[in-house]
Amino acid sequence: MKLPSTNRIEAFSDGVIAIIVTLLVLEIKIPEFEEHTFTGFLAVMTPLVPKLIGFAFSFFTVAIFWVNHHNFFHRVKHATWRLLWHNNLLLFFLSVVPFTTGFVGDYPFDRFVVAMYALNLFLAGIAFSAMWHYALVHTNLSEEKTSLAERKKEYMQTGVYGIALYGVAVVVALIYASAALAMLVVLQLVYFFMNSKTADAPLEE
Amino acid sequence: MKLPSTNRIEAFSDGVIAIIVTLLVLEIKIPEFEEHTFTGFLAVMTPLVPKLIGFAFSFFTVAIFWVNHHNFFHRVKHATWRLLWHNNLLLFFLSVVPFTTGFVGDYPFDRFVVAMYALNLFLAGIAFSAMWHYALVHTNLSEEKTSLAERKKEYMQTGVYGIALYGVAVVVALIYASAALAMLVVLQLVYFFMNSKTADAPLEE
Amino acid sequence: MKLPSTNRIEAFSDGVIAIIVTLLVLEIKIPEFEEHTFTGFLAVMTPLVPKLIGFAFSFFTVAIFWVNHHNFFHRVKHATWRLLWHNNLLLFFLSVVPFTTGFVGDYPFDRFVVAMYALNLFLAGIAFSAMWHYALVHTNLSEEKTSLAERKKEYMQTGVYGIALYGVAVVVALIYASAALAMLVVLQLVYFFMNSKTADAPLEE
Amino acid sequence: MKLPSTNRIEAFSDGVIAIIVTLLVLEIKIPEFEEHTFTGFLAVMTPLVPKLIGFAFSFFTVAIFWVNHHNFFHRVKHATWRLLWHNNLLLFFLSVVPFTTGFVGDYPFDRFVVAMYALNLFLAGIAFSAMWHYALVHTNLSEEKTSLAERKKEYMQTGVYGIALYGVAVVVALIYASAALAMLVVLQLVYFFMNSKTADAPLEE
Repeated sequence: MKLPSTNRIEAFSDGVIAIIVTLLVLEIKIPEFEEHTFTGFLAVMTPLVPKLIGFAFSFFTVAIFWVNHHNFFHRVKHATWRLLWHNNLLLFFLSVVPFTTGFVGDYPFDRFVVAMYALNLFLAGIAFSAMWHYALVHTNLSEEKTSLAERKKEYMQTGVYGIALYGVAVVVALIYASAALAMLVVLQLVYFFMNSKTADAPLEE
Repeated sequence: MKLPSTNRIEAFSDGVIAIIVTLLVLEIKIPEFEEHTFTGFLAVMTPLVPKLIGFAFSFFTVAIFWVNHHNFFHRVKHATWRLLWHNNLLLFFLSVVPFTTGFVGDYPFDRFVVAMYALNLFLAGIAFSAMWHYALVHTNLSEEKTSLAERKKEYMQTGVYGIALYGVAVVVALIYASAALAMLVVLQLVYFFMNSKTADAPLEE
Repeated sequence: MKLPSTNRIEAFSDGVIAIIVTLLVLEIKIPEFEEHTFTGFLAVMTPLVPKLIGFAFSFFTVAIFWVNHHNFFHRVKHATWRLLWHNNLLLFFLSVVPFTTGFVGDYPFDRFVVAMYALNLFLAGIAFSAMWHYALVHTNLSEEKTSLAERKKEYMQTGVYGIALYGVAVVVALIYASAALAMLVVLQLVYFFMNSKTADAPLEE
Repeated sequence: MKLPSTNRIEAFSDGVIAIIVTLLVLEIKIPEFEEHTFTGFLAVMTPLVPKLIGFAFSFFTVAIFWVNHHNFFHRVKHATWRLLWHNNLLLFFLSVVPFTTGFVGDYPFDRFVVAMYALNLFLAGIAFSAMWHYALVHTNLSEEKTSLAERKKEYMQTGVYGIALYGVAVVVALIYASAALAMLVVLQLVYFFMNSKTADAPLEE
């Protein structure tokens, strides 16, 4: 017996996402320091703080993508050529995250760098939405008996309104970088807690 | 129950390919910049453009290999020692791609660097063709009831004509680097759309 | 048939942990040397010794986490949203290990650097304990017929007393770095041999 | 249904080995060059040749380990704590290979660097032999009905004589580096062709 097709997409995606979250830490270079006192240690660690925050934030952002990817592929039962490529496009935008994260960690107050980071998350979000739209609205690759209207409504909630806010963050970044960063944090927290409603329920499969 | 043999080849290949596509981004170094204006940002990003294009192109090239690998191993039901090593040879040439991609991103107009990149894709293509020939023509490791003549015809179309064009790209690169790069892009797009004919059909398994 | 839910958590965790242990070696840079005699070789290798020890120690520390993770997910039969995120938190702290390991390899006698390393292991331990508490005490995601009292007792032994000693190591490091390093080594050996009692028994599954 | 225990060991090992073979290429740094003629290109590529040969050789060496690992875990049906740690020890020595490979690529004629590389392969070989001895001689974790004498004989052939030659290579390297490198190449080719006798036979599983 050969495993169903989406399993290999999931395995490949798991691999790519696992590498992305682990590569993030490579952007944090080990500092050199001389004065081995607490003051000396603080002086050396302080410039790393934006890098560390960026690393932690991107780790959780990509982890949220992974959790959603996990839930999405629970529902999708058939793989098609177009689904493969929607997924590859998502992985492409996610694989850029270590670069834009490192960049924003170096220049957290530069408007264009922050806008580029927000744009990266925005594009990854759009790729996910497009995959969702394709697999659950345009066609129905799940085996659920929901109506098209229901699936359309769900798609609008999941894949359009939230993603649009990332687009807003890109624009906000061009005006005031810190406001855009704050906005991204709030967005991720909202996404995180929205999904926690059924935190202890066994994941349907 | 132990999973069938090709599953572990697939898992190993998925791992290697997932790492290759994700390592590609490591070749793009975070630039240093001082002047935090749009002009300053553009000045800093412009030299990265060939690197970014190279990254995107190699990502999709390796992704196309993965999709074809995926489809190929759907059909192949038995693993042999020779199949393992055909696959290892393919993975070897693919694992060089981050190096040649970074190189071509630094020197996109050097004829020898572009020729080396085209040669890398050419050799990966030959390794794939050799694996195809071995598993579906020389022996039949699939369980399909197609005749040898049919499988030979399919092999010529898939594994010989297309790959030969990569060889042509190597020669073209030695004369005019940009023409070879354009040729590689066109080749990948043709490959991409050729496979899209049955884009929404469930992948057979 | 779709595989049960914890399988994809396991696959993702395997990927992340596999990358962590393999990235550790990247912190060891190839030295430059001129004098190709045994004395010259020793002179070049000596400064690498703390890095190599740190690499080996972190490799086995993360491997112990993997073995425990392996055993834990044998028992857990259902995945929930909260379990996913407990696991992601653990992976987050583990993914910082290559950075803190490289840092301690460069400055093995700095109290703050060693304290940070011990803190990293402490936080990873707490994350593991929290996941254990959630899955086997707060709820029972295993299908075992043990009483709550039994599972609580086991949790105290596995997840509280041992982890607390890592917290002690953080404090010790702030006073005397070498003592804390020795303490971490002893702790890992104790953990290692504690689990070896049933070394040849087939792992229950 | 939960997958059998060795599957997760295999998945973890596949991940680690996949990363090792792919990281090898990171040791090859993109050179800088000015003169874009064939002479200039050759001048730039020549110093990379030892690195490229080292990369190719280590890729195939680790791939041979993977193939043997693959075959070994076909036979082993039960996982024990001791098997997990034998495997972790093997992965540890393999994970050092990118470092020793990069080192030997930089200093291919240094006796101590080559000896360290041979020692690395020797230790990985010993770890594999120890795992083989444990799982198929000391205990029998396969379900095969072979006698202890048969399994001992097979162990001597597979796990003792061949590995001892790597030990000889370490000693040879200390006298004449190039002879040791030649010896390692011959050893790998012998290993490779020894296993090719049943090249087209379906792998038993």
